[in-house]
Amino acid sequence: MTKVLIFGHQNPDTDAITSAISFAYLQNALGVEAEAVALGPVSEETAFALNYFNTTAPRVIETASNEVDAVMLVDHNEAQQSVSDIKDVKVLAVVDHHRIANFETVDPLYYRAEPVGCTNTIIYKLFKEHNIEIPKEIAGLMASAIISDSLLFKSPTCTQEDIEIANKLAAIAGIDLNVYGLDLLKAGTNLADKTVAQLLNMDAKSFPMGDKSVRVAQVNTVDVEEVFLKQAELEAEMAVENEKNGYDLFVLVVTDILASDSAILAVGAPLSAVEKAFNVTLEHNRALLKGVVSRKKQVVPQLTEALSK
Amino acid sequence: MTKVLIFGHQNPDTDAITSAISFAYLQNALGVEAEAVALGPVSEETAFALNYFNTTAPRVIETASNEVDAVMLVDHNEAQQSVSDIKDVKVLAVVDHHRIANFETVDPLYYRAEPVGCTNTIIYKLFKEHNIEIPKEIAGLMASAIISDSLLFKSPTCTQEDIEIANKLAAIAGIDLNVYGLDLLKAGTNLADKTVAQLLNMDAKSFPMGDKSVRVAQVNTVDVEEVFLKQAELEAEMAVENEKNGYDLFVLVVTDILASDSAILAVGAPLSAVEKAFNVTLEHNRALLKGVVSRKKQVVPQLTEALSK
Repeated sequence: MTKVLIFGHQNPDTDAITSAISFAYLQNALGVEAEAVALGPVSEETAFALNYFNTTAPRVIETASNEVDAVMLVDHNEAQQSVSDIKDVKVLAVVDHHRIANFETVDPLYYRAEPVGCTNTIIYKLFKEHNIEIPKEIAGLMASAIISDSLLFKSPTCTQEDIEIANKLAAIAGIDLNVYGLDLLKAGTNLADKTVAQLLNMDAKSFPMGDKSVRVAQVNTVDVEEVFLKQAELEAEMAVENEKNGYDLFVLVVTDILASDSAILAVGAPLSAVEKAFNVTLEHNRALLKGVVSRKKQVVPQLTEALSK
Repeated sequence: MTKVLIFGHQNPDTDAITSAISFAYLQNALGVEAEAVALGPVSEETAFALNYFNTTAPRVIETASNEVDAVMLVDHNEAQQSVSDIKDVKVLAVVDHHRIANFETVDPLYYRAEPVGCTNTIIYKLFKEHNIEIPKEIAGLMASAIISDSLLFKSPTCTQEDIEIANKLAAIAGIDLNVYGLDLLKAGTNLADKTVAQLLNMDAKSFPMGDKSVRVAQVNTVDVEEVFLKQAELEAEMAVENEKNGYDLFVLVVTDILASDSAILAVGAPLSAVEKAFNVTLEHNRALLKGVVSRKKQVVPQLTEALSK
């Protein structure tokens, strides 16, 4: 088999970057020539993890078909979240923990999805199934992804399996999950020097919902009000993004990693669907979602449901 | 968790029926209340296997949402091959060995696909991963499915893993794969007393290809010419089916299980796509495809490719 590229979603978070690295390591160990690449630059949180575990960031690609015939996807499957020319390459394998949508192949493939909190939790099981040892640095990156995706096990997406596997990986990596974990999460909350455009793009994904196109961005912070000081600027930029990219609705989820709540800001239409989805009333386009920290489990399904009726 | 229904595709073949039975057995062993059901009556081949291993055929359902909120799919994923009200139930899990298309969920789920020859090969691995013993009767049904899907290991879809697992299952079931296998396949080739409508529906699936809707039916036989004695009748019925169901094209694949070749008969448009797909010239709508026995690997991708340009 010729070389394959392995990558996570656009606007990569720590799981998207590190699951490409860990799955590429596994594929190489299994005799497949695979390179982990990325669909965007790494976040500050991910940079902290890569630096801690002496790993260089994967190179960023714009297209895949100019380099390879076949790819493997991690931490995503929806075409609009993938490489721009995904239709021009063959998808050999997917490892993911999201819903399946807007994904289609011509041929049978490996597809391994489980409703767990993190792609690297599944990749850990694949290492075990194939009897491949996980090196210290890879284990550290995989643990980082579980910490990141689960907000240190506070997200409702987090399963018992995620916690158990994070502990096993931490033991291999030689880290204290709570100490390292909080340092990692805090590294991702430095929003002060970001422009509003950067902030809206740090961790943003697009979703078709009913007949609408919805953009959902999420930022983690220890100071929600600091983000909302820029509310007017944010709303203006969200309206520009909607116009430019054909989004009907843009929802920014500002998650307080200490309080485990999120404030949302919504721009576009129908705003009534946002209110219906979360059973809240938007005031100045804003609402507090008590106990909401997971875009995947507490935001996207509810919005999809509200927009599909 | 409340009860779930588990079923394979419409026009069920031996793998669709027995993978529902084996996966339901596994789910029950894991504490899930699951019932194997079917989206149609069993074929003569499947009836032979069920009878041999003292198992009753699953009851046939028309809809699922009147009984349950959630289902698990085996041996298929495409909505048009599934239960009629698939949109009204939650899909908790899929175990399959086909391409992924026309499949979408709101929530994350278990999805286990591998490009192997048979769904039961994957289910065998799931039994092992969960450390659940496979009873003799279930093992026999699972081996039957591998024999059926691989035409006794002659299909190009058949992998080394299918062969190894079929041998392990045969040992548990106490059967000789070659003796039992040929008896099983022959039980499915009794076409003489079938009407043309029955024959066209024995193992037929619909596929969106490009902007066309294509029906591909397959029958196994030890006497291809016996089938083509009814060519005029078959063509008339295929045209009626196209008209009635909005298929653009109907392709019947008549597979000689001894010679490992297939004769195809095509009705509808564009017939040029059929010729291009297989690099043949249709004569009286008919052509011989040398070495072709697998709809999934040697017919559907080639037709999809030809119709997608």
